[in-house]
Amino acid sequence: MTAGRHFLQIPGPSNVPDRILRAMDMPTMDHRGPAFSEVGRKALEGMKTIFKTEGRVVIYPSSGTGAWEAALVNTLSPGDTVLMYETGHFATLWKKLAEKLGLNPVFIEGDWRSGADADAIEARLRADTGHAIKAVCVVHNETSTGSVTDIAATRRAIDAAGHPALLMVDTISSLASVEYRHDDWGVDVTVSGSQKGLMLPPGLSFNAISAKAMKASETAGLIRSYWSWADMTGPNDTGYFPYTPATNLIYGLNAALDMLHEEGLDNVFARHRRHAAAARAAVEAWGLEILCNAPADRSPVLTAVMMPEGHSADAFRAITLRHYDMSLGNGLSKLADRVFRIGHLGDFNDLMLVGTLAGVEMGLRDAGVPYRAGGVQAAMDVLGQTLDTHRDAA
Amino acid sequence: MTAGRHFLQIPGPSNVPDRILRAMDMPTMDHRGPAFSEVGRKALEGMKTIFKTEGRVVIYPSSGTGAWEAALVNTLSPGDTVLMYETGHFATLWKKLAEKLGLNPVFIEGDWRSGADADAIEARLRADTGHAIKAVCVVHNETSTGSVTDIAATRRAIDAAGHPALLMVDTISSLASVEYRHDDWGVDVTVSGSQKGLMLPPGLSFNAISAKAMKASETAGLIRSYWSWADMTGPNDTGYFPYTPATNLIYGLNAALDMLHEEGLDNVFARHRRHAAAARAAVEAWGLEILCNAPADRSPVLTAVMMPEGHSADAFRAITLRHYDMSLGNGLSKLADRVFRIGHLGDFNDLMLVGTLAGVEMGLRDAGVPYRAGGVQAAMDVLGQTLDTHRDAA
Amino acid sequence: MTAGRHFLQIPGPSNVPDRILRAMDMPTMDHRGPAFSEVGRKALEGMKTIFKTEGRVVIYPSSGTGAWEAALVNTLSPGDTVLMYETGHFATLWKKLAEKLGLNPVFIEGDWRSGADADAIEARLRADTGHAIKAVCVVHNETSTGSVTDIAATRRAIDAAGHPALLMVDTISSLASVEYRHDDWGVDVTVSGSQKGLMLPPGLSFNAISAKAMKASETAGLIRSYWSWADMTGPNDTGYFPYTPATNLIYGLNAALDMLHEEGLDNVFARHRRHAAAARAAVEAWGLEILCNAPADRSPVLTAVMMPEGHSADAFRAITLRHYDMSLGNGLSKLADRVFRIGHLGDFNDLMLVGTLAGVEMGLRDAGVPYRAGGVQAAMDVLGQTLDTHRDAA
Amino acid sequence: MTAGRHFLQIPGPSNVPDRILRAMDMPTMDHRGPAFSEVGRKALEGMKTIFKTEGRVVIYPSSGTGAWEAALVNTLSPGDTVLMYETGHFATLWKKLAEKLGLNPVFIEGDWRSGADADAIEARLRADTGHAIKAVCVVHNETSTGSVTDIAATRRAIDAAGHPALLMVDTISSLASVEYRHDDWGVDVTVSGSQKGLMLPPGLSFNAISAKAMKASETAGLIRSYWSWADMTGPNDTGYFPYTPATNLIYGLNAALDMLHEEGLDNVFARHRRHAAAARAAVEAWGLEILCNAPADRSPVLTAVMMPEGHSADAFRAITLRHYDMSLGNGLSKLADRVFRIGHLGDFNDLMLVGTLAGVEMGLRDAGVPYRAGGVQAAMDVLGQTLDTHRDAA
Repeated sequence: MTAGRHFLQIPGPSNVPDRILRAMDMPTMDHRGPAFSEVGRKALEGMKTIFKTEGRVVIYPSSGTGAWEAALVNTLSPGDTVLMYETGHFATLWKKLAEKLGLNPVFIEGDWRSGADADAIEARLRADTGHAIKAVCVVHNETSTGSVTDIAATRRAIDAAGHPALLMVDTISSLASVEYRHDDWGVDVTVSGSQKGLMLPPGLSFNAISAKAMKASETAGLIRSYWSWADMTGPNDTGYFPYTPATNLIYGLNAALDMLHEEGLDNVFARHRRHAAAARAAVEAWGLEILCNAPADRSPVLTAVMMPEGHSADAFRAITLRHYDMSLGNGLSKLADRVFRIGHLGDFNDLMLVGTLAGVEMGLRDAGVPYRAGGVQAAMDVLGQTLDTHRDAA
Repeated sequence: MTAGRHFLQIPGPSNVPDRILRAMDMPTMDHRGPAFSEVGRKALEGMKTIFKTEGRVVIYPSSGTGAWEAALVNTLSPGDTVLMYETGHFATLWKKLAEKLGLNPVFIEGDWRSGADADAIEARLRADTGHAIKAVCVVHNETSTGSVTDIAATRRAIDAAGHPALLMVDTISSLASVEYRHDDWGVDVTVSGSQKGLMLPPGLSFNAISAKAMKASETAGLIRSYWSWADMTGPNDTGYFPYTPATNLIYGLNAALDMLHEEGLDNVFARHRRHAAAARAAVEAWGLEILCNAPADRSPVLTAVMMPEGHSADAFRAITLRHYDMSLGNGLSKLADRVFRIGHLGDFNDLMLVGTLAGVEMGLRDAGVPYRAGGVQAAMDVLGQTLDTHRDAA
Repeated sequence: MTAGRHFLQIPGPSNVPDRILRAMDMPTMDHRGPAFSEVGRKALEGMKTIFKTEGRVVIYPSSGTGAWEAALVNTLSPGDTVLMYETGHFATLWKKLAEKLGLNPVFIEGDWRSGADADAIEARLRADTGHAIKAVCVVHNETSTGSVTDIAATRRAIDAAGHPALLMVDTISSLASVEYRHDDWGVDVTVSGSQKGLMLPPGLSFNAISAKAMKASETAGLIRSYWSWADMTGPNDTGYFPYTPATNLIYGLNAALDMLHEEGLDNVFARHRRHAAAARAAVEAWGLEILCNAPADRSPVLTAVMMPEGHSADAFRAITLRHYDMSLGNGLSKLADRVFRIGHLGDFNDLMLVGTLAGVEMGLRDAGVPYRAGGVQAAMDVLGQTLDTHRDAA
Repeated sequence: MTAGRHFLQIPGPSNVPDRILRAMDMPTMDHRGPAFSEVGRKALEGMKTIFKTEGRVVIYPSSGTGAWEAALVNTLSPGDTVLMYETGHFATLWKKLAEKLGLNPVFIEGDWRSGADADAIEARLRADTGHAIKAVCVVHNETSTGSVTDIAATRRAIDAAGHPALLMVDTISSLASVEYRHDDWGVDVTVSGSQKGLMLPPGLSFNAISAKAMKASETAGLIRSYWSWADMTGPNDTGYFPYTPATNLIYGLNAALDMLHEEGLDNVFARHRRHAAAARAAVEAWGLEILCNAPADRSPVLTAVMMPEGHSADAFRAITLRHYDMSLGNGLSKLADRVFRIGHLGDFNDLMLVGTLAGVEMGLRDAGVPYRAGGVQAAMDVLGQTLDTHRDAA
């Protein structure tokens, strides 16, 4: 029996605001009735403003994993080669998914400590003179490591190589937290999910689709039904769906869209960058190592921290949960027990961040992990130096 | 601007009880943390008591359409022949889905006015001496027509034919409203969804899986990833999922399981039968025709009513919505505008039913449809004659 | 264990709409902080639009009983004579309250079957040549009997008698359901509560105060503290309260104000009149007697029905509760067990009304009460003849 | 537009847990129907376990101010002398209330920096040889100053003086946060409210009543109606109330009772003591002065901090609100602008406390208040040294 509010500081699902939970806590409506049209349209049109696209967005009742699958099965044919980049565990899962679908992923190996290297991508594409590669797939924010890939640079790499491959980007843990521009950056398919920057519970996923990707879907040979874009477009045009949508999650999505625009997306992004800077200052003050060793690639939404040799990250996380009622993210696959991840995303503010970092600092102490005190203080210093001036103005 | 509570009397999504909405209206939790194990296990084990199976149940974050796809892709190989039965629109959609997946559905044609004919199934199977047919797929409660297929009889037909085909049953609109016995009736894959008898919003779907079906999945050649049973089993054994589950819907599911067992499944089934009898009495009193012309097949969860020649069912439904704030189900595909459907399922009681039927009767009057008054009265008579004696006892 | 939605058809508390419950289901805020000012002001100003007054309205965290007390203690002195009218149980309770406060109530006796007789009031006031009577207190809608008093006529009676007494009116069960005009009708203190036409849970009560009543409060000798208007006015002017307000109920009140104005008060009143007409048609069709025997005084918010001799109203109500999960109002004090009351107020619509009347009709049958079938049908006929044309227009 | 959760760190209303808000977010029920009996009884009986009394508890739909009034009007007669103790603003308000009611309060002056001095009370009572003093009234936890009065010592003082006065105690901001024993400590009337340790929104208040107080009420001469204990007892015996209770707040109260007992009252008290110790360590580290200068009297529920000379506490609080979305308590009456108060009560945990203290520390910096950094660190040290071992055991 614990008192007070649980600190859900995994890198997603993020804390769902009351306003969104209450919006979902309303009677399910007739998804074929006239009133639903407005609800559906608001969601579909609203998501375009988040992806920053004039193109089509589709919404699935599924977890983000489904949207990964959707991106591939709508655009590719059995045996197609796709260039993927090993930024971490989720990039690896996406690659395994491609294999299950009968695709031929070429995987640029990485050390899980930075975003994707655009030069390496460019080099592979230049080498692919026959244009066997049909798509380049990268993860914008690698949730397992806390590293961000520069998507605009990735686009430039493809263009520099003069390669016609589609560009597909996973923004499951970055959308609505980190700046993203589907159209400006020339992305063909953006994949996302509801439970991170969109501040919803899990259960919705998204594809934003370029005209080029939509065209590719007309001839793509992979089998698809549930994920079929073609089946979505007709009903979506009037705010409806080809099969029963997750009505109450869509209520929540519409509330989330309102909240994001009320705060202003640029303010949302700035807030995440500021909290990440404060979190990193804490980690450095503790004398611990941040997993992402490319400073420019460090994530605004989470910070993955390496555990000192000989100490168990999972034992430490168990202590923060038991002593401080806080959930931290675990290390995944090859990072298991060696890394813990601090989520600082979604509906989050300065005092929640300090509380979170205090839970980490006190947990390090309780777990007997060698660290220097002062991380929380360091974070408070950063927060003070970067105080939102727009609030003062408001 | 309307006052009072909307009457959502489509045949699903059904009215979600406050208790379930409130259960969902709680903070999303860490789906990889220790506390989730109990939540996940309760849902997975609980669903076995609803399907009445000792076998495995998997839960997808998806609409019911996804669970249709899951049943097929886990058990079958490209080009496989499946015997399907045209009970109505949803059976037809399932067949189209099979085609999209590259299967070869053999469709026993029906007139959309009854459940599947077990004799016809038996005959086809007997004729299939080479056992080309790999699965028999039927819809338990055809939501588009209000007819029920006798699943035990279907099983007997397969056995009588000595045929090894898998039996797959869609219970999307019947589960937890109409008696169902996955194990006793020898079903191999049962497909279901959250938004009907389970009284949840849409967004979860289910497969109940026999040992035979699970074995078939080991060699089935269709491509699958999101829907893969094999990926589910490991994590499910400890209450977890291979990808992020729809956490808050699962909270709701656990509340639904409690509610169903508190009422008692047999009482739930009896309640649905009783309300259906009253609804049919109303339709007959109005002098209208029930679409399902096989009395034994008439559905406990909805009653589809044929519109008198020359009258538009959709115009009538628009009037019941505008005048009485009630949503009724429309006629689908070839029944469009010719049929309206009255849902009487889920979290429902006598007075809600009378209100519903009053909305129909007053709507018929307002829409100028020829009818005899007295349907509501007839329903009240049936309700009186069949009053739940268990309530008196309680 | 019951299924479906309970029919709460007592004459208040009425059914609370989801939108109001959800508005209340938000974090309590600092009632002294800057953001509360807007919340408090909206409630205080908004209530003026409901009472139709330019004067001051005060809001108490209390049940309606408290607002009765507040009206008296703020304006009167020990031993003051007040003229009260015995319209029923609640008028009698108010009179008893006056006695407890040390006032001297003169009670015009009534038979509990009609509203107050303005002529009788005028006669008493004319006879009071010394103006010993300091206040005239009437109940607008007598919840125990379902009769309405004509407040404009009461005002005219006072004026015709040339009497300076204050006019105090209890609108606990009429406000926001039955037309009411505090200023136009020259009322000095209007008393009300949250749980009827305002569609809130119980816990808030109100006084609307004329300038004359406010002036009287400056010299009134009764002891008061919690109920003191004088303590309210300063803080209220900026949206605050002298002691902690019932914050979350005020959130709900603000949602209720929005809902009432979105529907339009005149539409709300018309809706209640229409439903009352249908309810009365049902009672007459059953061959039962309406308690209020002055047709012009019959209430738009409830209908009290006399039980045939030899039958217990409470036994009947117990059956409607057990068989149909519907709560009806009981007979109070001298009407105990002889009357049942049907509430048709607040957030209510046609199909809820028919469901309610069906519960009564089936309950009469189940309880063995002599009645003629056809009440529900009669109500449906009235509803059809009086269908809201504004809905068609909308 | 702010992101994340508001920190409501005034000393009440406290943060309302989701479980309680959701419990309140359920349909209002018939407060005269059979099912309510259980609801009412649970609340009435449950509150006895919180007050630790075998005697009667009454529940009012009102703010705590009403329960102050109730304590006095039920037990005293016009002109009665009551001995009250000036511990701070709220003690002073209670004294003013006594004056308004026509009582004769004798006020032992205090400097608002400690709890009541039992010796001073004893001296006054000894001097009152004629037993003119009918009641001794003290505030257990003075919310305006953060000081606690020793109630057992107060009882001993009365007994030592051999004085028959009633002992009345205000526990509005201490109940369910600080140990309290109505029966063991010989209290005659305990006053409390819902919005502090009980974790509810404001709107309910309480009197716990000794047999001696109940007996006094039989002859007490002050006028009363709404607050009358005598009217409560009959209905309360079967779980009902003499007038409409605040139904939905009572739902919340019942959830609060469950939560408090699940955690265990002793654990709740220990948690508050521990958080207070950490908060005080922070204040001392900042070099600021705690208002309560009697260390033994410092409150477990709030810490009032004196602002350095020349600095505005209100300007500081405005900054913590604007920069960190945190509400702190203001200085009241003579402490206005000189003191700010940190609430650390109710549904609260370690990380919420650190977040709160971080908001104070960063606010001091932003407001240009002279302070030493390190308060948050000091609090973290205390939390670590006093870690709940019961959690480890659990």
